[in-house]
Amino acid sequence: MNETELWRELGQQLRVDSVRSAAVTKSGHPTSSMSAADLMAVLLAKYLRYDFDAPENPRNDHLVFSKGHASPLLYSMYRAAGAITDEELLSFRTFGSRFQGHPTPAIPWVDVATGSLGQGLPFGVGIALAGKKLDRLPYRIWVLCGDSEIAEGSMWEAFEHASFYGLDNLTAIIDVNRLGQRGQTMHGWDLDSYADRAKAFGWHAIEIDGHDVEAIDAAYTEAISTSGGPTVIVAKTIKGKGVKEVENKEGWHGKALDDPEHAIEELGGIRNIVVDVAKPEGDAEPHRFETGPLELPTWELGEEVATRRAYGDALAALGSGRGDVVALDGEVSNSTYAEIFRDAHPDRYFEMYIAEQQMLAAAVGIQVRTWVPFASTFAAFFSRAYDFIRMAAISQANIRLCGSHAGVSIGEDGPSQMALEDLAMMRAVHGSTVLYPSDANQTAKLVEQMADREGIVFLRTTRGATPVVYGADEDFPIGGSRVLREGDDIAIVAAGITLHESLQAAEQLEQEGISARVIDLYSVKPVDGETLRAAAEATGGRILTVEDHWPEGGIGDAVLEALSDGEAPVRVVRLAVREMPGSGKPAELLAAAGIDAEHIAEAARALVGAPVGAR
Amino acid sequence: MNETELWRELGQQLRVDSVRSAAVTKSGHPTSSMSAADLMAVLLAKYLRYDFDAPENPRNDHLVFSKGHASPLLYSMYRAAGAITDEELLSFRTFGSRFQGHPTPAIPWVDVATGSLGQGLPFGVGIALAGKKLDRLPYRIWVLCGDSEIAEGSMWEAFEHASFYGLDNLTAIIDVNRLGQRGQTMHGWDLDSYADRAKAFGWHAIEIDGHDVEAIDAAYTEAISTSGGPTVIVAKTIKGKGVKEVENKEGWHGKALDDPEHAIEELGGIRNIVVDVAKPEGDAEPHRFETGPLELPTWELGEEVATRRAYGDALAALGSGRGDVVALDGEVSNSTYAEIFRDAHPDRYFEMYIAEQQMLAAAVGIQVRTWVPFASTFAAFFSRAYDFIRMAAISQANIRLCGSHAGVSIGEDGPSQMALEDLAMMRAVHGSTVLYPSDANQTAKLVEQMADREGIVFLRTTRGATPVVYGADEDFPIGGSRVLREGDDIAIVAAGITLHESLQAAEQLEQEGISARVIDLYSVKPVDGETLRAAAEATGGRILTVEDHWPEGGIGDAVLEALSDGEAPVRVVRLAVREMPGSGKPAELLAAAGIDAEHIAEAARALVGAPVGAR
Repeated sequence: MNETELWRELGQQLRVDSVRSAAVTKSGHPTSSMSAADLMAVLLAKYLRYDFDAPENPRNDHLVFSKGHASPLLYSMYRAAGAITDEELLSFRTFGSRFQGHPTPAIPWVDVATGSLGQGLPFGVGIALAGKKLDRLPYRIWVLCGDSEIAEGSMWEAFEHASFYGLDNLTAIIDVNRLGQRGQTMHGWDLDSYADRAKAFGWHAIEIDGHDVEAIDAAYTEAISTSGGPTVIVAKTIKGKGVKEVENKEGWHGKALDDPEHAIEELGGIRNIVVDVAKPEGDAEPHRFETGPLELPTWELGEEVATRRAYGDALAALGSGRGDVVALDGEVSNSTYAEIFRDAHPDRYFEMYIAEQQMLAAAVGIQVRTWVPFASTFAAFFSRAYDFIRMAAISQANIRLCGSHAGVSIGEDGPSQMALEDLAMMRAVHGSTVLYPSDANQTAKLVEQMADREGIVFLRTTRGATPVVYGADEDFPIGGSRVLREGDDIAIVAAGITLHESLQAAEQLEQEGISARVIDLYSVKPVDGETLRAAAEATGGRILTVEDHWPEGGIGDAVLEALSDGEAPVRVVRLAVREMPGSGKPAELLAAAGIDAEHIAEAARALVGAPVGAR
Repeated sequence: MNETELWRELGQQLRVDSVRSAAVTKSGHPTSSMSAADLMAVLLAKYLRYDFDAPENPRNDHLVFSKGHASPLLYSMYRAAGAITDEELLSFRTFGSRFQGHPTPAIPWVDVATGSLGQGLPFGVGIALAGKKLDRLPYRIWVLCGDSEIAEGSMWEAFEHASFYGLDNLTAIIDVNRLGQRGQTMHGWDLDSYADRAKAFGWHAIEIDGHDVEAIDAAYTEAISTSGGPTVIVAKTIKGKGVKEVENKEGWHGKALDDPEHAIEELGGIRNIVVDVAKPEGDAEPHRFETGPLELPTWELGEEVATRRAYGDALAALGSGRGDVVALDGEVSNSTYAEIFRDAHPDRYFEMYIAEQQMLAAAVGIQVRTWVPFASTFAAFFSRAYDFIRMAAISQANIRLCGSHAGVSIGEDGPSQMALEDLAMMRAVHGSTVLYPSDANQTAKLVEQMADREGIVFLRTTRGATPVVYGADEDFPIGGSRVLREGDDIAIVAAGITLHESLQAAEQLEQEGISARVIDLYSVKPVDGETLRAAAEATGGRILTVEDHWPEGGIGDAVLEALSDGEAPVRVVRLAVREMPGSGKPAELLAAAGIDAEHIAEAARALVGAPVGAR
C-alpha cells in the first residue's frame, strides 16, 4: 500500500470506527466525524509528532478538537495509533468510560475539554503562545474546527490574537461540511467566506477539497512551511461522507446511524490499520526563566493600600521568586495592577486586549504546559468568559483569576463596571476556590498560595484604599477565616470592603454595650464552617452577613450553607446590594446599598433585640 | 454661520461640555469623548431623526454609544439638542443623577445600558432587526464604537449577523483614536485593518479623517444611501483632540483634565449652540402581526413529555395568540424545540446560529421596540452570554430565556453540555425570575406568564420525558410552589427532574412508615417562603433539598435563604451534584450524583432519624 492508499484506507477506518463507536449507546456524532476523517488520517499518518506513551513529553505536538462532538473520530485515531484497544473504543459514552461524549483530560492525550463550541481554537492559541514565548520549543498545535462554530465571536478573538502574536506554530483546520445541528450554516460551502475573513485577520489561508488526501497533504506541508503567522486550512467536506443514507443530509447531526452494519459494509468493512505515529525529535528541554528568592511585599499596619495594588505587587514578587508564574490581562493592567508584573517580567506577560474569552482560554492553554497563569480584569468582566471558566473546570485546569473593582464601592463609574454577581458565579464552578481579601498583607499571602492551588482560583480585589489591619507575618490559609474582634452578642461576617465597615460598626456597637464578634471571611469557598458554627453558638444564633454583592450566591449563602446543620436555631440576616446602584462616591453608594457601618450597626441592634428560636 | 462652521463649532461645544462635566466629580472620560465629538456633531445636526420630546415615537432613530464611557459626549449632545439644562449636564456622575458614569435607560433617550465594551453594536443589530423585520419602519440605528472594543468577539458576531440579515438600516462608526485604557490598541491608526475585516464580513466600509466635518458628512450620506447591507465608517481621530496637554497622549484614559479652565479656553470657551434636531417624518405605524385566540396546549395526566418540548409547543401557541411574541435560538432549535415556533411563525423567528452573545443582545435590542422576545439554547450555553444578561438587567430589559438540557440527567453527552451552574448564575441577576417546571402543563402556564413578566426571566427545561403530574387547568403563579404530597416527618424540596425522583422516594418512604411532604419549587426566584416555613414547622425542621445542579446558588441556597429567620432550628440537607459527571444513561448519572429516588430516600431516612435543635 502506498502512502496515499494508506491515507484513504485509514480515512475509511476512522469512519467505520466512528460509526461503530456511536452504535454502542446509539448516541454520538458519527456524521460530523466522517466529514473530517480524511483530514485527520493524513495528519495522524504523516504530520502529527506525538508520543502516545509519554503524553507529558514537552516536545509533543498538541491536537485539539475544537469541534468536540467529533469525539468518535478522535477516539478512532487513538485506536489507529495503537494507543487504545478496540474494546476501549467501544466503551464510548458508557457510564464510567473515559471516552465520554465530548473529549476531556480524563484521557491522557486530551489537553483541554471541548464540547462548548468556539473554545478549541482559543485554547490552541494559548498552547501556541506557551510554545513560542514560554517553552520555546518547536511543537505544533493542530486545531480541528467545525464550520458552525466559526459564528462564535470567541473564534475571532482567537484569529485576531494568533495573528497579532505571529503564531506560526498554529494550524486551524475548518471542516466545512455545510451542515450545523439544525440545518445549513450561514455560509454553506462558500469556502471563500471563511478564507477571506481569516486573511483579513492576518492568517495564511488555504482552500482544499477535504476528501482529496493529496490536497490535504499539500496543505499541511504548506502550513508547516509558513512562517510569521498562523495558517488556516479551509476544507470542503461532506457530512456523513461515505454512507449514502446520511451523506450531506439534514437531520443526522448527533445521531447514530440506523443501520450501522450496512454502513460499515458500504465503507468497506472493519480495518485494523495501526499507524506508527512519529514521535517528536530531539531532546530539547523547555525554556526556564531564572529567578531569585521569593520575597513577598509587606505593608505597615494602618497604611492605606488598595488590595488590587497589593495583588500587583505580590504577583510581581511571586514572579521574581518563581519562573513558572505567568500573567495575562485584558487591557486594564493599570487598573488591576497587573502592570507591575508586566514591567518586572515582560517575557512572561501577555496583553490580551479587550478579549476576556481569549484571555481565559490562553490561561487554560498555557497551564496545559505546566505554567502557572494568573489572569486579571475587572471582576465584572469575567462574566464575559463564564462559559470558558465552566469549561476550564471540566478541563481540570489550574488557573488563577483576579477580579478587581468589586461592588458598589468602586464609586462613580456606575453599575456596568461593578461586580455584583462574581462571587455567585465563581462559587458555582466545580472545585473552585473563592478568595476575598480585606488588606494588603492578606492579599499577598493569598496570592502566594494561589500559585500552588489546584482548580479555578478566584481572587476578588477592591478598588479603593483600605487600612492594613494584619501584620505582615500573619498567615491566612485557604479555607480559614479570622476573628478580628471577639464578641458574644452578635457575629458580623464580612470580607473585603465590608470588613472595614463592620469593624467600624462594631466600635460603635461597643459604645452602646453590644459586643459584636467580627469574622473576616477571606476564604468564601472553601468556607470555615467551624468558626461560623462557634460564632453561632456563642451569640445565641445571631449572625449578620454583609457583602458588596447581590444577595444571591455570595457570602450570605456561603454562611447559610455552613450553618444549615440544625444543631440550634440560627437567624442569619443578610445585608447585600438589593437595588440597582447608580453613580456616586463610594461612601454614598455603600450607604445607599445599606452596607456601610451605620446600616450594619442598625441591623445588628435589631438582630440583638430579636428573639431566636422563640417559637 | 454656514453648515460646516456650525458643525465645527458644535464639535468644539461638545468637547468643552465633556471637559466641564468630567470636571465636576473629577472623574469620567473626557478624552474619549473629544475624539468622537466631530463625528457626533455632524450626526446630531444633520442626520439623526429623533424627537427628544417623544422618545417612545416608533419612528425615531436609535443612537447607541457602544463606547459607553464616552458618556460626557452623549450627555453633551442632549444639552446641544435642548433636551437637558446645563445644570443637569453638570450633575454628571453625582449621587442620584440619571447621568451616570455610563449610559443607562434611566435616561429616556438611552435604549440600552453600555459600559461593558463590545455590546453596543450587538444591541444595535437587535434594534436593526426589529426595524427591518418586525416594525418594518425606516428608522436608522447609529452605533458609536471604540477601536479598543473591536477586539471583543461579540463585535464580530454583530458584524456577521448584520451582514447576513442585510441590515442596511445600521451604521457603525468606529472612533479610531488609537489609544485604549493602558496604551495603544493592536492596530493603532491602521484604518485598513478595521475596514478590511469589516469588508470580509460583508460590510460596506468607508475610511475618513474623523475631524474633517465635510468628510464625515459625505460618509453619512454614503452610509444612508447604501442598500442591501450595513455600513461602517472607520474614522481616524485623536484622543483628547483640541487640548494639547492630553492630545494623543497615553495615561489620560478615564481621567478628568487637570486644568479644565485652561482646556475650555483652549477650545474657544463655552458655547450655547442649540441644534434643532430633525424629527422623524411621517406617521407610519409599526407593523403588527395578526393573531387568533390564545390556546395553550394541554397534556393528559401520566403522559410522558419533556418540558423542553412543552416549551416549544407553548411558545408557538403563545405566538398564535399574541403578535408581539418573537423567538430567537442559537442553532439548536431542534433541541430546545423553538423550531415549533419557527415553523408556526417564521416571520417572527430569528436564527442566531452559534452566537449566544449576539442572541442575547438581539433579544435586548428587539425588546427596546416593545416586542416580547424569547431566546433559547442549552442552559449551559447561556454562560457564554452572562455579561450580556448582567448588562440586560442594567438596561431594564424585559427578556425571556429558556435553557434546555439541564443537569446530569441529559445523559451521554457529558459535562460540557450539562447546565449545572445556571440557577446560580440566573438567580444572581438583579430583579431576575428563575423558573424550573417539572411537567408539561406547568411549563405551558409558566411560558404564558413569562410574556408579561418584567426583567430577566429564565426557564430551565429538562431533556428527557417526564410524566405529566398536573392537570391542564391548574395554575402556577410565579412566586408560588406546590405541595404535591403531604407529610410531616420530612419535607423534600425539588423541581424539574428531581421532583419526579422525590415523588418516587416519598412512595418508598411511605411504605417504611415515613411521611414525606414533597414540595415542587417550580419558582426558584422569587421563592415561596411561606410554604417552606410551614414545611419546616410541620416537620420539626427537617428539610431535604434535591437538585440537578452544583450545590452552590441553586434550590438549596434559595431554601436556606427562606428559612434563615431563626424562628426554630432547621436542618437543611442539600443533595446536589458534587463530583464532575461523565457520560452515561440519565438514570446512571442521577444515581452517581446521589440525586435519584434511592439516594433521596436514603438521605431522608437519615435526616428523619437525626436530632434537630438537640443541643
